Amino acid sequence: MTSNLEILVQDIKTFVREELYPLEPILLQQGYYAVEAAVYEKRERVKARGWWAPSIPRHYGGLGLNLPDFARVSEVLGLSFLGHLTFNCQAPDIGNMELLMEVASDEQKERYLMPLIRGEIRSCFSMTEPEHAGSNPLYMSATAVKDGDDYVINGHKWFTSSQEGTAFAIVMAITNPDAPKLHQRASQIIVPTDTPGFRRLRNIKIMGEAGEGYFTDAEIVYENVRVPQANLLGREGEGFALAQMRLGPGRVHHCMRWIGICERAFDLMCQRAASRELSPGKLLAEKQTIQHWIAESRAEINAARFLVMDVAHKIESGGAHAARVDISLIKFYVAGVLDRLMDRAVQVHGALGITDDTMLAFAYRRERAARIYDGPDEVHKSAVARHILKEYGVNVSI
Amino acid sequence: MTSNLEILVQDIKTFVREELYPLEPILLQQGYYAVEAAVYEKRERVKARGWWAPSIPRHYGGLGLNLPDFARVSEVLGLSFLGHLTFNCQAPDIGNMELLMEVASDEQKERYLMPLIRGEIRSCFSMTEPEHAGSNPLYMSATAVKDGDDYVINGHKWFTSSQEGTAFAIVMAITNPDAPKLHQRASQIIVPTDTPGFRRLRNIKIMGEAGEGYFTDAEIVYENVRVPQANLLGREGEGFALAQMRLGPGRVHHCMRWIGICERAFDLMCQRAASRELSPGKLLAEKQTIQHWIAESRAEINAARFLVMDVAHKIESGGAHAARVDISLIKFYVAGVLDRLMDRAVQVHGALGITDDTMLAFAYRRERAARIYDGPDEVHKSAVARHILKEYGVNVSI
Amino acid sequence: MTSNLEILVQDIKTFVREELYPLEPILLQQGYYAVEAAVYEKRERVKARGWWAPSIPRHYGGLGLNLPDFARVSEVLGLSFLGHLTFNCQAPDIGNMELLMEVASDEQKERYLMPLIRGEIRSCFSMTEPEHAGSNPLYMSATAVKDGDDYVINGHKWFTSSQEGTAFAIVMAITNPDAPKLHQRASQIIVPTDTPGFRRLRNIKIMGEAGEGYFTDAEIVYENVRVPQANLLGREGEGFALAQMRLGPGRVHHCMRWIGICERAFDLMCQRAASRELSPGKLLAEKQTIQHWIAESRAEINAARFLVMDVAHKIESGGAHAARVDISLIKFYVAGVLDRLMDRAVQVHGALGITDDTMLAFAYRRERAARIYDGPDEVHKSAVARHILKEYGVNVSI
Amino acid sequence: MTSNLEILVQDIKTFVREELYPLEPILLQQGYYAVEAAVYEKRERVKARGWWAPSIPRHYGGLGLNLPDFARVSEVLGLSFLGHLTFNCQAPDIGNMELLMEVASDEQKERYLMPLIRGEIRSCFSMTEPEHAGSNPLYMSATAVKDGDDYVINGHKWFTSSQEGTAFAIVMAITNPDAPKLHQRASQIIVPTDTPGFRRLRNIKIMGEAGEGYFTDAEIVYENVRVPQANLLGREGEGFALAQMRLGPGRVHHCMRWIGICERAFDLMCQRAASRELSPGKLLAEKQTIQHWIAESRAEINAARFLVMDVAHKIESGGAHAARVDISLIKFYVAGVLDRLMDRAVQVHGALGITDDTMLAFAYRRERAARIYDGPDEVHKSAVARHILKEYGVNVSI
Repeated sequence: MTSNLEILVQDIKTFVREELYPLEPILLQQGYYAVEAAVYEKRERVKARGWWAPSIPRHYGGLGLNLPDFARVSEVLGLSFLGHLTFNCQAPDIGNMELLMEVASDEQKERYLMPLIRGEIRSCFSMTEPEHAGSNPLYMSATAVKDGDDYVINGHKWFTSSQEGTAFAIVMAITNPDAPKLHQRASQIIVPTDTPGFRRLRNIKIMGEAGEGYFTDAEIVYENVRVPQANLLGREGEGFALAQMRLGPGRVHHCMRWIGICERAFDLMCQRAASRELSPGKLLAEKQTIQHWIAESRAEINAARFLVMDVAHKIESGGAHAARVDISLIKFYVAGVLDRLMDRAVQVHGALGITDDTMLAFAYRRERAARIYDGPDEVHKSAVARHILKEYGVNVSI
Repeated sequence: MTSNLEILVQDIKTFVREELYPLEPILLQQGYYAVEAAVYEKRERVKARGWWAPSIPRHYGGLGLNLPDFARVSEVLGLSFLGHLTFNCQAPDIGNMELLMEVASDEQKERYLMPLIRGEIRSCFSMTEPEHAGSNPLYMSATAVKDGDDYVINGHKWFTSSQEGTAFAIVMAITNPDAPKLHQRASQIIVPTDTPGFRRLRNIKIMGEAGEGYFTDAEIVYENVRVPQANLLGREGEGFALAQMRLGPGRVHHCMRWIGICERAFDLMCQRAASRELSPGKLLAEKQTIQHWIAESRAEINAARFLVMDVAHKIESGGAHAARVDISLIKFYVAGVLDRLMDRAVQVHGALGITDDTMLAFAYRRERAARIYDGPDEVHKSAVARHILKEYGVNVSI
Repeated sequence: MTSNLEILVQDIKTFVREELYPLEPILLQQGYYAVEAAVYEKRERVKARGWWAPSIPRHYGGLGLNLPDFARVSEVLGLSFLGHLTFNCQAPDIGNMELLMEVASDEQKERYLMPLIRGEIRSCFSMTEPEHAGSNPLYMSATAVKDGDDYVINGHKWFTSSQEGTAFAIVMAITNPDAPKLHQRASQIIVPTDTPGFRRLRNIKIMGEAGEGYFTDAEIVYENVRVPQANLLGREGEGFALAQMRLGPGRVHHCMRWIGICERAFDLMCQRAASRELSPGKLLAEKQTIQHWIAESRAEINAARFLVMDVAHKIESGGAHAARVDISLIKFYVAGVLDRLMDRAVQVHGALGITDDTMLAFAYRRERAARIYDGPDEVHKSAVARHILKEYGVNVSI
Repeated sequence: MTSNLEILVQDIKTFVREELYPLEPILLQQGYYAVEAAVYEKRERVKARGWWAPSIPRHYGGLGLNLPDFARVSEVLGLSFLGHLTFNCQAPDIGNMELLMEVASDEQKERYLMPLIRGEIRSCFSMTEPEHAGSNPLYMSATAVKDGDDYVINGHKWFTSSQEGTAFAIVMAITNPDAPKLHQRASQIIVPTDTPGFRRLRNIKIMGEAGEGYFTDAEIVYENVRVPQANLLGREGEGFALAQMRLGPGRVHHCMRWIGICERAFDLMCQRAASRELSPGKLLAEKQTIQHWIAESRAEINAARFLVMDVAHKIESGGAHAARVDISLIKFYVAGVLDRLMDRAVQVHGALGITDDTMLAFAYRRERAARIYDGPDEVHKSAVARHILKEYGVNVSI
């Protein structure tokens, strides 16, 4: 790490700790809307510091970090659940920005990309369907049928994350049902959320909370939603190719964010062990089990970071395709580390650990999804093995 | 199992599935008060069937099951989070009833026990303090000082479960601060919840939900709460002895309830595996990992049930003290099985698993407490080892 | 357990500890032949005590215990690696005896069964082939072709356990290659080991030792081995059916033997923890990790015993077929417990644990096979799941 | 990795595979002396290639690799159990060479170090005592008492690795029993193994094998062993300081050797999965469990390598003391990875896995020691936690 980057990372870490940690209790106890104004005020400070949209190229108005450098920043942003949002590099907007920079028309960029980058609007990505296994995205029912100059979209989606408050969705729908290959049937289309027929059924209640605003996951029906064909992203039938494209850097972002969560949990775990008395003068930290959890956690977090940073460098130098096996590998490995860290940190906190008085319970229940979304770990493990076994001359089904 | 018991268990299981499962989505999506009336209506059916208060002796108005038989019933009640409540054998009321039957004066029985048994009121148990490790109950700050004919109680408690809606609390407080032994300093005292100075600060938000009514955990301050000395349970200084007394059968109840949850999760997991298609015609159940989770879960649940039923029989024949090591053993063993079951069942359900559209997410996050309350697993494991190592001639600290 | 059985089990346990434990260092350091004479001398004492061949019916000359009672005895015999051999209920002879009692002709019984029961000879079972996965016994190459009054057997077998020193083998070979169903193609045939063409290539070196005598696993070629057709067991094509028949009670024997090994390891682990000083006056037993291993081991062994004894009772009352799913279940569950026990006991012993100065290293490396033989755990888990999933209406491949 | 190093590593890997793999079956089936001559012949080829003693500085006659570069070489040497021995960088000689280079007198170097470097002799290190826990090296009984110009050494040691065939031992013994600090009481002294009173009681039988030559672990008594005081290494009382000094780079060597073993096991596991048929045409590699083991193993090995290489760089740039916490961390982390890899690879091989027909069983049983020697994992975990917790202001006992 060059020293400039090191300074940047430390400065951002300090900012997250000093400016964002104090907002967390409000988020945890009162919900997103109770902190939204404060977050937007912090966003101005971020802009003033020159840190805005750290992964976006400078000519688009961002800080212009390359993937490995942004990965390091993503980790320290991940220390708080408000980090990425405050720096305008939160999922799913960051993925949408990356996609739009790559394939959007000039008009699409002007209308959708630039307001996103400037932080004026938020967006969402509408792909997963309740009727089909998310682990197999090729298996999809939503359709977009041409009618005059428009597409007419019908479908049922859920886990359209952060939809509440967004200006537009990017929707995956089947446009070419007769294409010979399954992965050439779908397209990605921009749908403003105020389009007639776009209807949110609910914010799904997940692990006890339906959430608010950015912290929601919507179930949506698209009923004869009509948008101009000009809202198509890239070419017809490219939907899966575009979806794949966003996954590589996206997994690095996620994994580094998870590592940030791990570091936060690790810090809380150590603080707790070092301060909680089991009896007068007898610290929790004296317990060998606690000591072992601390040591194992340290090893696992360090290992996870090395693996992810290696992938970041590989993508930076060779592209996402060349690193795709390693991308699958870090998905399940880091999700596993995250899972164990949350569990240990909760246990070390005892009854406090299951309350929303710390960020741990939020992380424990919310990030349980890490082993599921973007493909469950089981699928990624088989994908990695499938690739390895090809070198041994066999082509296994998974 | 005698065949009469087998019929009873099957009948109750059918009742739980047919009458209580349909209430669960309302509980999960709308909260306790949305189902409370329905639960109380079901309670009348339970009474009509002769199943009311299954663990309470007949002369008090219950069904009079002994511990092993009630354990079997507790398992099938545990299939639904509304089971025990509907049958009036829910914690903490069941523990309070058992305690009051054992030590209450005639007046205390008339005023507090009988309305509990009849289901007219609910109660709570106020012991854990946020400032002290729950794993060491001897380490407590709340005090009850004699003043005239009264006790004046001051203290700060949390995790006073199900307090909202209760008529009285049983409070642990130090009455004899100078007693030579730590475990002779505290007493248990009945405190009506409408006594001046009894103040609920909040229902603690736990894993995303503060909950309502029965499904709450209160943080309470006792500020100069004055109750008659006649509200003392048993003798002064007996607080810990009484607390111990409730733990033996209580752990059996809990463990069998957990096994019920495990069976429910197991059933949902198998249903999901047998119906979810990964691609047209390709079932999730074909995956070896899913198969192995099913097999391992079956083995672990069966093992857990054998262990707990063995303890139930031991307590029934020899008393809780003789079985105390086994009671610790089932605490951590069954909590571990529960933890693994919930995790597997969630994972098998994918995105659905983390939503509140099934009971799994509720169980996953709510029962995370199982490894913590009534003493964290780590303490119970050391307690078991300490006992075993005595047979090898050493007296270890834990 | 009836009190007579309890007395028997305790007496046999005392015998194993007092008479067989002292032979173990000789076995471990000098090999089987160094203790063989002593073992045969102990066998006479066993006969004198009336304990000989405990699972064999009285009219054949055994003690006549039913399966659950023998299971209890098998556990205490399992405390020593010499237990079953000394009592003449060691695998594979016990399985061969059970088979011969069931299906042998009078002449076969006279010639092969009775000397086995009397302990005059030993036998082996020759089924697994190196070229084929042991997990799929239907997939076999050895053949037995009729020629005149004889069968002429050709094949290549390995893991023919305990072959060195045996009088005869029971060989599985394809006799009906054209039978419509795979499982109707093989037969079991008695082959005296001095028959021309029966050739042991080697005692396989397993985890460091080729072993001697009873403690060997042979690789064998059958080259035109000619035996009378009268040596056929049961009917032609019944080979797999007979193999299945021996597995049910056999797994109970094995599992209880494993539990005996676990109890031995547990005892050694506790002894070590209670005596080893990390520094003057500071016992290993004070370490929380050690305490937790002890507690977890106690829970797991108890759970394993309950599961196995339940299967023993099921087989006794309903036959092996009715219990076949539970038989698969205990196979993998108890093998897992055994694996963890051995690992913990070795670790607690430190450097001593990996030496052959205790029985632990022998158990650690030798019983690693437990997760593999009689079908690897992975196969049994899928078999259990397959059965469970049938109740959910699906028929999965495994 | 610079490209020169990459070429070197690949060349050595090719050498190990082509020249040493073929010797392994002889080692495994016939023992060390059956391959010793071949190994010494291969050593000449290694010298001819310029690879001899890769970690030893050029002016002493080695290849002069720095620690990170040698770490990479150590991994590929670790692919075979004969790798390090053939390249003259095997433990314990490499540790003795490093020590002697650092502290030996000119005469000691001439007499002991140079023949070691030239590969003319082997040496051993005699520290662990059966009576004391190896996890606490300060707790030692052997003594070296001055008498005239000599030391007279008495003591009882075991796990003096590779002693058979050595020319000298470096012995740890108490020379200053009254030193105020425990760690200032012992010294390291060179003892030629032909000195009167140096007596090997036995090569300890470990996991089934006493071994031969290099592959042995001796139990030794020192009975009035008299050596000149000139054989003292460094200064009196420095024994523990010198022992610590060897541990840092030594752990890196070991860990990279373990990673080599892991890669070998991984390769065998994949080969097996890709070739073993469960039934005609149905490969083991199709099984999801096998796929997951492959993927998890790949992730864990990669993670382990990153962690160890990071430590190698830290030691190279900042010295072993600065990296001591990370050195503890890799000890337990990589030992854990090794343990899991061996277990999975054995299981994938089924019955073959437990035989000595592959190197897996040797690795499985022999490297079980990895979690024990140089301090059991439990001690290292607590040491790491102790250091971390200091940053949180507490000083815990371990």
